[in-house]
Parts: sequence; C-alpha cells; structure tokens
Amino acid sequence: MFESAEIGHKLSKAQYKRIEPKLRADLLDAQFDLAKKGAFPVVVLISGVRGAGKGETVNLLNEWMDPRHIHTHAFDVPSDEERERPTMWRYWRALPPKGRIGILFGSWYTVPIIERVFKRSSSKDLAGSIAEINRFERMLADEGALVLKFWFHLSKKRQKKRLKALESDPETSWRITKRDWDFFKVYDRFYKVSEHTLRETSTAQAPWIVVEGSDPEYRAVTVGKTLLEGIRKRLATPAEKIAKSKAAPILRAVDKRNVLSAMDLSQKIDKDKYEKDIDKWQRRLALATLHPKFRDRNVVCVFEGMDAAGKGGAIRRITGAIDARLYHTIPVAAPTDEERAQPYLWRFWRHVPRKGRLTIYDRSWYGRVLVERIEGFCAEADWMRAYSEINDFEGELAASGAIVAKFWLQISKREQLKRFKEREKTRFKRFKITDEDWRNRAKWDAYQLAAADMIERTSTAHAPWTLVGANDKYHARVRILSTLVKTIEAALGGRNK
Amino acid sequence: MFESAEIGHKLSKAQYKRIEPKLRADLLDAQFDLAKKGAFPVVVLISGVRGAGKGETVNLLNEWMDPRHIHTHAFDVPSDEERERPTMWRYWRALPPKGRIGILFGSWYTVPIIERVFKRSSSKDLAGSIAEINRFERMLADEGALVLKFWFHLSKKRQKKRLKALESDPETSWRITKRDWDFFKVYDRFYKVSEHTLRETSTAQAPWIVVEGSDPEYRAVTVGKTLLEGIRKRLATPAEKIAKSKAAPILRAVDKRNVLSAMDLSQKIDKDKYEKDIDKWQRRLALATLHPKFRDRNVVCVFEGMDAAGKGGAIRRITGAIDARLYHTIPVAAPTDEERAQPYLWRFWRHVPRKGRLTIYDRSWYGRVLVERIEGFCAEADWMRAYSEINDFEGELAASGAIVAKFWLQISKREQLKRFKEREKTRFKRFKITDEDWRNRAKWDAYQLAAADMIERTSTAHAPWTLVGANDKYHARVRILSTLVKTIEAALGGRNK
Repeated sequence: MFESAEIGHKLSKAQYKRIEPKLRADLLDAQFDLAKKGAFPVVVLISGVRGAGKGETVNLLNEWMDPRHIHTHAFDVPSDEERERPTMWRYWRALPPKGRIGILFGSWYTVPIIERVFKRSSSKDLAGSIAEINRFERMLADEGALVLKFWFHLSKKRQKKRLKALESDPETSWRITKRDWDFFKVYDRFYKVSEHTLRETSTAQAPWIVVEGSDPEYRAVTVGKTLLEGIRKRLATPAEKIAKSKAAPILRAVDKRNVLSAMDLSQKIDKDKYEKDIDKWQRRLALATLHPKFRDRNVVCVFEGMDAAGKGGAIRRITGAIDARLYHTIPVAAPTDEERAQPYLWRFWRHVPRKGRLTIYDRSWYGRVLVERIEGFCAEADWMRAYSEINDFEGELAASGAIVAKFWLQISKREQLKRFKEREKTRFKRFKITDEDWRNRAKWDAYQLAAADMIERTSTAHAPWTLVGANDKYHARVRILSTLVKTIEAALGGRNK
Repeated sequence: MFESAEIGHKLSKAQYKRIEPKLRADLLDAQFDLAKKGAFPVVVLISGVRGAGKGETVNLLNEWMDPRHIHTHAFDVPSDEERERPTMWRYWRALPPKGRIGILFGSWYTVPIIERVFKRSSSKDLAGSIAEINRFERMLADEGALVLKFWFHLSKKRQKKRLKALESDPETSWRITKRDWDFFKVYDRFYKVSEHTLRETSTAQAPWIVVEGSDPEYRAVTVGKTLLEGIRKRLATPAEKIAKSKAAPILRAVDKRNVLSAMDLSQKIDKDKYEKDIDKWQRRLALATLHPKFRDRNVVCVFEGMDAAGKGGAIRRITGAIDARLYHTIPVAAPTDEERAQPYLWRFWRHVPRKGRLTIYDRSWYGRVLVERIEGFCAEADWMRAYSEINDFEGELAASGAIVAKFWLQISKREQLKRFKEREKTRFKRFKITDEDWRNRAKWDAYQLAAADMIERTSTAHAPWTLVGANDKYHARVRILSTLVKTIEAALGGRNK
C-alpha cells in the first residue's frame, strides 16, 4: 500500500502558488455549502508515521477553511471520565455533527496498531480490532457520514532524514523526543503492521488515502483536493443514491410461532411471597452495589416491552434499592436537535455510566428496530443494520467491563386492555396513559413480530435478553430483580455478605 | 437558624400513613405538570450534618416521584476534566433542564463550609464564597429556576446517638467511617460556620429550609411538602409575575461621548511592517503555548465588534500560529434546544477549555447585552443583570487560572460600508455577508451605545477589554496578536525563549 508513497512525490513552489488560491477558495465554498445544507458530517482521520507533516497539514486545513466550522480533536492520555467507559467513548463524543468537519488526530487506529507493533497484543487481537473498526466505520457511513482517512507515509530513509532535520533546527528541535527515535527503531515492524491494518480497513465506505509526507506542497494539495472532491461529490449525490448496507430479508417461521408467542404467561406469585422476595432481592442488590469490586464495574440496564407492561414499576423496584447517587434513569424521549445531528446511537452513548454507577434505560436503542421499524420512521436497510450495530455497541460495553442486562416484559393483549382501562380511571398513574398507547395497541401483531426478531438477533452471550412474563406484576418484578442481582453478583465473582 | 430544628419534631406512623399516599400522588401530579409545561427547572440542594437522613430522603423522593424525570447528582472527588476548569463547572454541567427536577447532593456549599471548619480558609475567603454563591443563585432564579435548599440538621446529642445507632447495627455499620467521627469532633465549629453561611445565603430567591433530621417521617413529609408547594406555586404564577432583579437605569453621558466615539481610528501600518510584525508575534505566540507552565493554564479569548470589523481575519492570525490540537473556535450560533432549556450562560460554559488549551469565542455571551438588548430578545431587567453575571463568570474563569482576553474591534460606519460593498463583489468571502448584516448596520448607533455600556460595565482587572481600532486591518491584527501574546506571557511569568 505504501509503494507509491515512496517515489518522492513533489510539487514545485510555482505549481503550488498557482493551485493554492483556487483550491482554498473552493474548499471554503464547499465548507459553506456543507454547513448550509447540514446534511452530513465529514469525519477526517489523520494518521501515519512521525515527521510526515500531519500537524502541519491539519493546521493548513484550518488556515484554508473557516476554522470556526472545523472541530479538531487530538487524543492524548484519556481523562478519567474516558477511562471508565468503553474505549470508543472518547471518539463517540468527538464526532462532528452534521454540516461540520471533524478532524481526528490519532483516532481509533492508534492503539490497535501501536499495541501490536510493540507486541503487547497478538495478531488475533489486532484482527478483532480490525473487524470492530470496519463495523464501526460502516455504521458511520450508513448513518450518512463522509469518512476520509489519510495516512501520512515516509520511507525509512526519508523519515530518518526528516527527524534529523527537525532535530538540528533550533526552532523545531523541541518537537523531536526520545519517543520519536524509539518509534523509528521499530520502523519495519510499524510498516508491516500498519500496512496490514490499512489493507484490511480500506473499504468502499471508508477508503484509506495514503499520502507521501516528504514534500509539504504535495501533501497539502493532495489532502485538500481529496477533501474537496469528497465533499463536492457527496453534496451532489441525492440522499437516496448513497450506497448503504443492503437489507437482508427476514424469513418468518412457517408455523408463525416465535419466542414471544411461545412464552408461558400464567406464572404468578401471591402478595405475601412477593413482599418477602422483593425485600430479599432488594437487600441483595443494595449489598451488591456496596461490593468493593462494584467500584470498577458499571451497569447498563435496558427495559423494553409493550405499553403498560410494567416497565416503570419494575424500574422503581430497582431504584428503590439503590442509593440515588449511584444511578441515572433515562426515559426515552424525542431526540434533541443536537442528537438528531449525530449517528442514531449517539443519544444513548452519552449516558453510558462511569464505573460504580448504573444507567437504566426505560426504552432504548431498540426503538430503532421496534417503533421506528413499524412506523416506517427509518428505511428497512437502516433498521436491518441496526441489529449488528447494536450488538457491536453492547459488545463494546461488555468489553469495557460494563454489566449489561436487558429485559423484555411480555404481557398478553387482553392484559394490556385491562391495564389501559384501569389507568384511565386512576388519577395516580396519569403519567402513563396517552393516545399514542392506543394507536400502538392497534399495531400489536407487528410489534410482537418485530420484538421477536429483535430478541433473536440481539441476544448475545455478553448481553442476553431476559424474557419476563409480566401478566402478573409481582412475578415480573421478582424475576427482574433476581435476574439483575444474579447477573451483577456473577460479574463481581460472588455475593457481598 | 437551627433552634427550631432541635426540638424533636416528629410524626407518628399513623399520621404518616394518612399523609403519605396523598402527598405522593400530588407530587407525581406536580412533577407531571412541570414536565409538560417545561417552563422552569427545579434545583434542589441537599446539605447538612451527617447521619441526618439526607440520602434516605432523596431515595424516598425518587420513590415517590417518577425517578426517570429526576436527575440526582452527587459530588465526590472531582474528575480530572472537572479539576481543570472553574470550580463551578461541575455544578454547571449538572443543572437540570427546564421541566426537570435536579437533586444536588453536596452542592456549591460543601467546599466553602468544610474548608472554613477545618481552618483551611479565612473568614474573608468564606465571605467571598458567600457573595459569589448569592450572585450565582440570584442568576439561577432570574433565569427562572426554582431553587430549594434543604439543610438537614441534628443537635449534637442526637447526632451522636444517630451515629452510634448506625454503627452498632450490622446492616448499616459500613456507612459510618472514621471521617464521620472526625466531623463529629468539630460539631460546634461546623454548627457555627454553617449557621453563619446559611444566614448569609438565605435569600428571597433561594431560601434555606432547615429540616430536623432525627425523625424519618417528619423529615420526609417536610421536604416533600415544601417541594410540592414550591412547584405548585411557581406553576400557578404567570411568568411576568416572577420577581426578577430590577433593572437599574443607565445614565447617558450628557456630552454623548463614550469610550468608542473617543477612539482614534486613524492608526495604520504598512504591509512590510505588518508582515514582519505578524511573523514575530505568531512565533512568540507559538512559543508561549509551548511554555511548560502553559500546560497548567487555559486561555479564553473573546471577539466582539460590528459586522465586517475583521474578527474572522484576526482569529485566523491567532489560530494560524497555534497547533490545531490546542484550540477550539466557537462561532456564535442559534442556541440548540438543549441550550435553550438552560441558563443563558450554559452554552458558553460547556466550551470552557481544559488546561493547556484555548477556546476562541467568535462573538460570545456579550450577545446578551448587544444584539439581545437591541433587538428586544430579552427584557431590560435580564440584560441589565447580565453585566454582573458575566463579571462573575469571568471572575470564576480567572480564579481557576484561565487567562481571559477580550477584544472589541472598532471600525467607522463608513469603513463598514466600504467592506460590505467589497464583500458583495468577491466570491472568496461568501461566508461572511448576509441580509442581517445590512439590518444590523441600520441600527449602528444603538449598537455603539450598547457596546460602550458593555465595555464600561465589564472591563475588570481580571478580564479587561482591549479596544482595537480596526479601520486598518493590519494594525488591528498586530494589536490583537501582540496584546494576546503579552497577556499570556505575563500570566506565565515571562517569555518562552
């Protein structure tokens, strides 16, 4: 991949002087159109070898374009708020909104490559990271982002020359540290690992552009023109023409049975047993959150189910056992305009808890494959790809040490009607009944089908669904609480006594 | 203040059983109305002595009401992202949006009181903190927030009893640590300092409610009823009736001269000198950001001025000298809906940089006393109070080690016309000319008057305005760059050579 970036590409000063003013004006124009249309974000990754002019080029892009509409992010040592969340969290929060250009120095490639170069990870680890990255970038592309990845390359000889030149100039010598030479020592290995990584991650949605870094004029014009063409082309493409992952057809079981219709909803327990059980599990939950190991784990809890299935009541049995300082409950709500300018999952990413904390989502990212699918709020290709995006997200959570518990509360259609009617009478529960509930009820079968698909496609080893028969509230609450407690205890390696 | 909270307030279980269901239903109703109207946020502070049931009460509030619409925040050890910003930043980011209840454990009172109790601060320090707090809470109230401050009190005897009881019960003994007894030893001093602080901060907008903490039923009902009444009363009050700080009249100078009209705009420099000077100051700026001490300082830069005064060009001369990884430029933009649900300053608070970084605001919080004042987007009382709110905010910044530099770029009305006409011709600058610019130009005199007021009222020792004659762009840019460099160098204790 690097061969053509070692041939000594060059632009003369005269050529540059001729090209630059027009390129600059065109980039400003493109940036303006992008901001005005606000249709998609531009994610620019800047990676490559040291001394190849990455910083200079980014500074130049900021000079050429309007720096007020460029978000430049460098990723140094993670902050403690970042360290306590999935590795990707720091990148999630740095993504540019629609209409803006985000320049990411370092990006999600740095750690996998460096770890492998210094043999702190295996080739299998790298393969895993590459697969994750490809899925993440596909998601970004599917969400409409224009992803441009620049790799700044220098041949070994040129890098040595460049580092020496920087070192001997008193104005730039501070930039060269022992670390640069340490990296230079492993040039060959770095070459091999990064070439492999680039090859495996150069996809149709997010191709790599390798830039020879020795000539400032050449590299600047190359990056500038690529960026310009990328934005222009995308601006000229009608939304429906943008290639998205194809939706695979969902095959229905020929006997029309599914995991939900097969559930036994007759389980119930009496009030006495309920009160004893709830008390027991609430105590154990409280103790679990006091376990010394709990400080290093975070809990993500998801509740889904038909309206009036008892999600709110179940959540309150959980929160009732935990100190209010430790949890946040996130009710689903219409996305804010900041959220609408980002990938679909962004509004859930931002609430991922720190270590020692719980976030309880009352409805969640699964809305994508439930309400949005059924109401036609998003295209089939979009909700189809959501399954794997969600699995990836929950995989990230689990990999970072989060304990993920997902509950589907299943009631019968008849039980829902009974509860709707009860609620209309009691003033105490006015929080919970709306016209929309009635409209959703009319689409009961579609919801059941979508939920069954969802459960099948997103029940994973690290984040399994717990199906809860919820016609009897007592049974449901005890089931949920005990499952959650056991999940947490298992993750902590035992009960807190 | 604590006398009436030492008399052994109590509710019998029977009384509680009678009151609780109704109170709970009413609270849910009030919370529902609050969310539906979305008119104001409710900020609940929970403070007081240890063992007085603060945590239990908050947990109960979460149980009574819908926990999904309550944001509970505890303030433990600050994260590194918090430590690198003004002390208040962690509270700013925890404020509930309109329509929501935010419960803040610990709040902005904790540190000032504790520091004084353990004599790590002087009475003068405490007085300063109290003054700051009062201004901050007045701002919250003026922004429409309902602020309720609960202080949980126990007499010395009762606290001792309570701590011993908690300690001897195997289920709660883990909650009592050496720290609790250390605090108990200084009970008398804590009593004195906190009583003084409460007295000085119990204002009409944000009164303290002292709650005797020994009886669980009494304290729960007291807090619940106070919260209920507070929300109900505010919901029933028409917006225009909510008492706000009165606007003081602004007196005009009888000779109609002001700081702006008195400026000499004839200064200019030629191109050769400009290029030499810019180069010199850009180098010094670059070096300043590489100063080892710069890693512990952050820079907040504000640009204001009439349209076409050259703000964008000046900003680019600054960013052109700095590594793109170190700065963020924030152009003024219409507030997002998340920003509109918060106090006016919130959308600027969120961009305050970490240490070692710069944020450049291209137009800023001064919009409140410029465009919003002139266009009548906010009431006189609101923009009048903005002067002191802004001074407080900038004071916070400076106190946290931020270097604040504010530039007003002054051009003549004739020069503006010339630039508008030029811009209409050149395609290169399409970013910059709108109909609104013409409309604003029509209100030139009003803007000048407002700007003069602004400069007079917000030029402080820690954040002075630099007035820049900008009819000549070269002169303006050199003036701005050199001022910024000197300001930073002075703060770092010298030049980086």
